[in-house]
Amino acid sequence: MINAVVWNEFRHEKQKDHVAAKIYPDGIHATIASYLNGVDGVNAETATLDEPEHGLSEARLAKTDVLLWWGHMAHGEVSDEVVARVRTRVLSGMGLIVLHSGHFSKIFRSLMGTNCSLGWRNDGEKERLWNLAPDHPITAGLGEYIEIPRAEMYSERFDIPEPERLIFVSWFEGGEVFRSGCTWTRGNGKVFYFRPGDESWPVYHQKEVMSVIANAVKWAAPSITADTSRCENRKTPIEAIAPKT
Amino acid sequence: MINAVVWNEFRHEKQKDHVAAKIYPDGIHATIASYLNGVDGVNAETATLDEPEHGLSEARLAKTDVLLWWGHMAHGEVSDEVVARVRTRVLSGMGLIVLHSGHFSKIFRSLMGTNCSLGWRNDGEKERLWNLAPDHPITAGLGEYIEIPRAEMYSERFDIPEPERLIFVSWFEGGEVFRSGCTWTRGNGKVFYFRPGDESWPVYHQKEVMSVIANAVKWAAPSITADTSRCENRKTPIEAIAPKT
Amino acid sequence: MINAVVWNEFRHEKQKDHVAAKIYPDGIHATIASYLNGVDGVNAETATLDEPEHGLSEARLAKTDVLLWWGHMAHGEVSDEVVARVRTRVLSGMGLIVLHSGHFSKIFRSLMGTNCSLGWRNDGEKERLWNLAPDHPITAGLGEYIEIPRAEMYSERFDIPEPERLIFVSWFEGGEVFRSGCTWTRGNGKVFYFRPGDESWPVYHQKEVMSVIANAVKWAAPSITADTSRCENRKTPIEAIAPKT
Amino acid sequence: MINAVVWNEFRHEKQKDHVAAKIYPDGIHATIASYLNGVDGVNAETATLDEPEHGLSEARLAKTDVLLWWGHMAHGEVSDEVVARVRTRVLSGMGLIVLHSGHFSKIFRSLMGTNCSLGWRNDGEKERLWNLAPDHPITAGLGEYIEIPRAEMYSERFDIPEPERLIFVSWFEGGEVFRSGCTWTRGNGKVFYFRPGDESWPVYHQKEVMSVIANAVKWAAPSITADTSRCENRKTPIEAIAPKT
Repeated sequence: MINAVVWNEFRHEKQKDHVAAKIYPDGIHATIASYLNGVDGVNAETATLDEPEHGLSEARLAKTDVLLWWGHMAHGEVSDEVVARVRTRVLSGMGLIVLHSGHFSKIFRSLMGTNCSLGWRNDGEKERLWNLAPDHPITAGLGEYIEIPRAEMYSERFDIPEPERLIFVSWFEGGEVFRSGCTWTRGNGKVFYFRPGDESWPVYHQKEVMSVIANAVKWAAPSITADTSRCENRKTPIEAIAPKT
Repeated sequence: MINAVVWNEFRHEKQKDHVAAKIYPDGIHATIASYLNGVDGVNAETATLDEPEHGLSEARLAKTDVLLWWGHMAHGEVSDEVVARVRTRVLSGMGLIVLHSGHFSKIFRSLMGTNCSLGWRNDGEKERLWNLAPDHPITAGLGEYIEIPRAEMYSERFDIPEPERLIFVSWFEGGEVFRSGCTWTRGNGKVFYFRPGDESWPVYHQKEVMSVIANAVKWAAPSITADTSRCENRKTPIEAIAPKT
Repeated sequence: MINAVVWNEFRHEKQKDHVAAKIYPDGIHATIASYLNGVDGVNAETATLDEPEHGLSEARLAKTDVLLWWGHMAHGEVSDEVVARVRTRVLSGMGLIVLHSGHFSKIFRSLMGTNCSLGWRNDGEKERLWNLAPDHPITAGLGEYIEIPRAEMYSERFDIPEPERLIFVSWFEGGEVFRSGCTWTRGNGKVFYFRPGDESWPVYHQKEVMSVIANAVKWAAPSITADTSRCENRKTPIEAIAPKT
Repeated sequence: MINAVVWNEFRHEKQKDHVAAKIYPDGIHATIASYLNGVDGVNAETATLDEPEHGLSEARLAKTDVLLWWGHMAHGEVSDEVVARVRTRVLSGMGLIVLHSGHFSKIFRSLMGTNCSLGWRNDGEKERLWNLAPDHPITAGLGEYIEIPRAEMYSERFDIPEPERLIFVSWFEGGEVFRSGCTWTRGNGKVFYFRPGDESWPVYHQKEVMSVIANAVKWAAPSITADTSRCENRKTPIEAIAPKT
């Protein structure tokens, strides 16, 4: 059983009259977790910014296999201490799935080492995510592309390190492209960035999008028991096997 | 003309009776800068930890093409503000060459996103750096390997993201290997990690080692004028070229 | 001085009443070579399928730094012997720039190891090549994208190994995307695939496209004297530096 | 159930008085297949050079999930037709594990696009394979390194494209290093090169080595049903979703 935690800053959805409150009345995290709990082999819970320690205590992270991250308007409110804690867990083997505007979260930027900046326009355009990796577990069950009828647009240049595998590239009606699905390894942990999803469009109610997220949870789960001991610098020298000449 | 700055924490060399003071009486930075100033097309200066702003003011970084970094015992004393400033310059296009124990510097770790930990043993062993990339400008003029008669040993697993190009792998007498030359791109900037060099061995007096450093300075210099404007997130949406359907 | 050879199968342009004959009366190769001869530091010549040895004798390849390749309707007529010869030269250090329908040439497929297949539609659509690598020498002088008013469309999934650097991604009016600029290293040689150009559209008369090709020629030129000796398997064992225990 | 086929040229073992006949009396393939048949979820069979079609008919390959390849003295006797057939299956999704001297096989070279040359010395030296990827399924169950008491030495420069993941680097007693475990994707197929194993040393009787091979078989098995249709170039244009302006 893979233990997933869906983290959401959960602010837009609580704003009176915000469209997000209509699309995701219980929050984006609830919608995603509910879907994942219907997937064989996955147990999903949630955590949000306004909980103590943002819902991400040491004890909880220690038993989390995959963390999903959605944030947008409150990246600056996430405490540096919790970010460092999540980062250590990723380097120790926990999978991390960063969604949409999470590209600008502290945790994603600290793992990438770059600005993670991009261009954008929220005009409800058609998006097509082209499947560049039909061999990859993340695209299992998909055809040549996913089409999202109306979405916020994200545009290159997306300032990220070259992905290890480029899974999706988006086409937007208005003339832009974007690397919408990218994987990296950091320490012992797998990282997947997935673009779709905005608080103002019902993207997480679309079946193909949720199917990719479920595939990614399975892919990002550690294949071995995460071992933090491998992440520390040695305090004592290694013994040589051969005498010095 | 490439403007290079060699940064050194410059502490070991000032310790009374430390072997470093004998090998590098004016500091490691002085030895490296002096060599680089003998290379056509390179102008090298130095900066050290105990100077105001560690010698790395905004104004100075703005005219630096390539920064070299050596640190060991005082990583924690480097101010977060200066680290952030250097990081921004790298993402804007400045080259960065990280030497030896600089693997554990704040700037390198923040650009890699990983722990950058490794194994080590300082027993004066023979090291051979095998040249895996004879096509690469960094290895110009080298043969199949560089041999260093006595060196500190560094061992895998080196916790770094997969290098874009793996240039050197070291063999050590005592039984270990290490990825000793690695390149990455971060934002618009080139990053090169180069293992050789320890304050207790005269490695920066060895010609082949210095030749690699000079090659790396030329390679890491921005091929275009560094343009910071590309690194910021857009504040306003992009105009579409096609009407929304 | 970089010695470039522009190779073209040169068949469409000789077909009576073919639109290619009007756009490129002397052949695509002549148009490209003429442009390159106006670039500082580049000397360009041409070679075509119907010349003896396709214009690519051993002697000529030996003094070629960068080969550009355009083919479409006659890939099968290129002799396996000449392909093997070109491949050996690339692995020894010669740069190779593969243009447009050259994706399906024997030489490109043999260096990639994959099918190099893709989707296509020739309907004169608008194309935008987004610049994903503003730091890279190949994009020097470009802005955020190049726009081509009318072009043949190429679509993902493009069956290639993950590029070492992804330089351009194209957006097409009709709903597709394509990895239009990709780099790889093979042996000691640099390889660049560049999508634009079709015999039925005047793409090689567009300044930005030609500027990229000129940049690529400079980038792909060997940084060292190409050394074929490094490409052969050793016939005799290496001498050990340490006695066997 | 993963269907694996272990292919071996099976020549050394049949030579009278050859040491291989003593170490692997039924052939290297039999030793490996026997081990794999003791692994949960794996069904292993064998194929050899001197069988009709080298034991690799279309029908057999169609139901093979992972092919393992060992060859040395008879690479040139493998028919080009069978190589092309295997290559098509790999691009369609079949995993391929290339062992030791298989680095110089036609199939490996055709998938890599390079010479795949290296240095060597057969002097029965100690080898240590350092584990650079403790997160990777291929290293599951291993510690920091595998030690092989006596082995043939392989040395860099190994002329391969930069691996997608570098899993092992070998240290040899005599002073050399080698990238001993490397992964690539080609089309829809996973490729793993694994250095250990020579006909003159009992390396395939060593538990850790066999454990890596078993892990690799599981890793290389297609995660989806291999779909050859994705590998062919389209014969008809794609229909646009938007009218041409």
